[in-house]
Amino acid sequence: MILPPDPPSGFDWSSHNTYSVSLLHRHSEQRTDETLVQRHLDDPQRRLMMLFGDRVLVRSGRADFEGNAASALFQETDTQIFLGLDPEGRPWFAGEFRSEPELEPGEALVDLRSLARDAIVGSDSFGPLAQARATLFWHQRHRFCGVCGAPTVSIAAGYQRNCTGCGTQHFPRTDPVVIMLIQDGEDRVLLGRTPRFEAGMYTCLAGFMEPGETVEDAVRRETKEESGIDVGAVRYHASQPWPFPANLMLGCYGEAISTDIEVDKAEMDDCRWFSRDEVKAMLATTEVGKLHCPPRLAVARHLIEVWADLK
Amino acid sequence: MILPPDPPSGFDWSSHNTYSVSLLHRHSEQRTDETLVQRHLDDPQRRLMMLFGDRVLVRSGRADFEGNAASALFQETDTQIFLGLDPEGRPWFAGEFRSEPELEPGEALVDLRSLARDAIVGSDSFGPLAQARATLFWHQRHRFCGVCGAPTVSIAAGYQRNCTGCGTQHFPRTDPVVIMLIQDGEDRVLLGRTPRFEAGMYTCLAGFMEPGETVEDAVRRETKEESGIDVGAVRYHASQPWPFPANLMLGCYGEAISTDIEVDKAEMDDCRWFSRDEVKAMLATTEVGKLHCPPRLAVARHLIEVWADLK
Repeated sequence: MILPPDPPSGFDWSSHNTYSVSLLHRHSEQRTDETLVQRHLDDPQRRLMMLFGDRVLVRSGRADFEGNAASALFQETDTQIFLGLDPEGRPWFAGEFRSEPELEPGEALVDLRSLARDAIVGSDSFGPLAQARATLFWHQRHRFCGVCGAPTVSIAAGYQRNCTGCGTQHFPRTDPVVIMLIQDGEDRVLLGRTPRFEAGMYTCLAGFMEPGETVEDAVRRETKEESGIDVGAVRYHASQPWPFPANLMLGCYGEAISTDIEVDKAEMDDCRWFSRDEVKAMLATTEVGKLHCPPRLAVARHLIEVWADLK
Repeated sequence: MILPPDPPSGFDWSSHNTYSVSLLHRHSEQRTDETLVQRHLDDPQRRLMMLFGDRVLVRSGRADFEGNAASALFQETDTQIFLGLDPEGRPWFAGEFRSEPELEPGEALVDLRSLARDAIVGSDSFGPLAQARATLFWHQRHRFCGVCGAPTVSIAAGYQRNCTGCGTQHFPRTDPVVIMLIQDGEDRVLLGRTPRFEAGMYTCLAGFMEPGETVEDAVRRETKEESGIDVGAVRYHASQPWPFPANLMLGCYGEAISTDIEVDKAEMDDCRWFSRDEVKAMLATTEVGKLHCPPRLAVARHLIEVWADLK
């Protein structure tokens, strides 16, 4: 196996990814207890995060509000989802603004990607925000029943929607995506770019998993489709919640068993083999225009860094 | 690390799971080429699998039909999904009966689980059938748009539905589920049962992943919720498409860091620690009533077998 070795016992690569860490205990068993959820909503210590699409309300470096601030914000939303309890036992909720809010001085609506990249709020906030964004997005996309077209209503503290027509139950969805660093026998890795990337940025190939395939086969299929490269052995490395809007990134390493690249020009701008020295130089710069790798918030960078540090 | 070691280089545990193997190349790039898809539909060599919910039409030990048999069956369905091309270049499709079909002599409608457990058709059929079942189920659940309630129409050879009202695009969904064998420091594993299991069957704990969590945290959360056991290190082992109806099983090992079980009686009948000798005895029998493990079609059994063979 030419891939990086497994980490030491007990080491959890996934917990090193952005959006992966949350101090909240979800307490899913409490969601269907309406009395308890109402008590949490009435708790003066309750905290609230407010989103509008992929943007989050930030005030004084915080994305969570309590007391009077939370009370005012609760008026602005129809759907409150219960995120869980923090170590102090305080209940956390998230809500979606009904319409774009008018901002007061000191407030900003910041998209989740910038929030993480520029460390605008503390890193502990990203886990709860990923949970909030993915769940609120699901609500937006399931206001009507896909089976019969009738309106649905939110129950179970925001983790279920029931159809008012045929009664079908709907639950939050997570879309698994494979993202992979493919290495060949000459100590090179396969990186590509799409037209929407900033100039010079290359990263791991990735793609949505399809119904009826394994993680390993999805890695092989997507790599073949995008680059023409055949992949043999595949090894899972780490996962990451990716709230754009509701993905689960499954980070893997794979061994190439062919070397001739054929770029899928419908999806990719370019796709190439990079040597270890090239990759190390790319990791050392973030300058737009120069060849570089994605920022730390992406699991792709972690896959690349682990590989680059091998030797 | 007390968990089973990684397999030898290049060994793909996932490919040993039922529903994981398909000889078809999906050719996703062909789906949006309507002329090409029509040519595949008109190809006299095309093959068709027909489902009704979770049951599959079987005739003479086959779940795929070609020639006149396929032509007749194509009349019985509105939605044909393109599964891919087999090694001989023949296009495969799947369709859903509009209503429960009247069976002719020699025909049967067999549920996917029995089909696999009793080896009623060849093992190569299960990959395409998993792809078909998951995708056809998605069609049933997305006939109307969740954003606006208007009808949707199938395009892209059955891999996309577009809303006729607001234009929202909908894509097939796969629900990730963690399934885990938890081991403690005394060489025991944690197995549980729900009331719907046949008498005596115990298996790995499992649960749907939630928005905004890693695979590893989902293993810890679900184990804690169902058994009260705290889990430290988690290691991914293998994945399996699980077409009941559209799940992706993510099989993992985990190390228990507590031992006192508290069973979640709302979800589980029982949950216990089993010694290695007990597990070996359970693997050796399938007798209902006696303690036993799930059949080979479940990734749970593979997790247990790999662990049991360690010593």
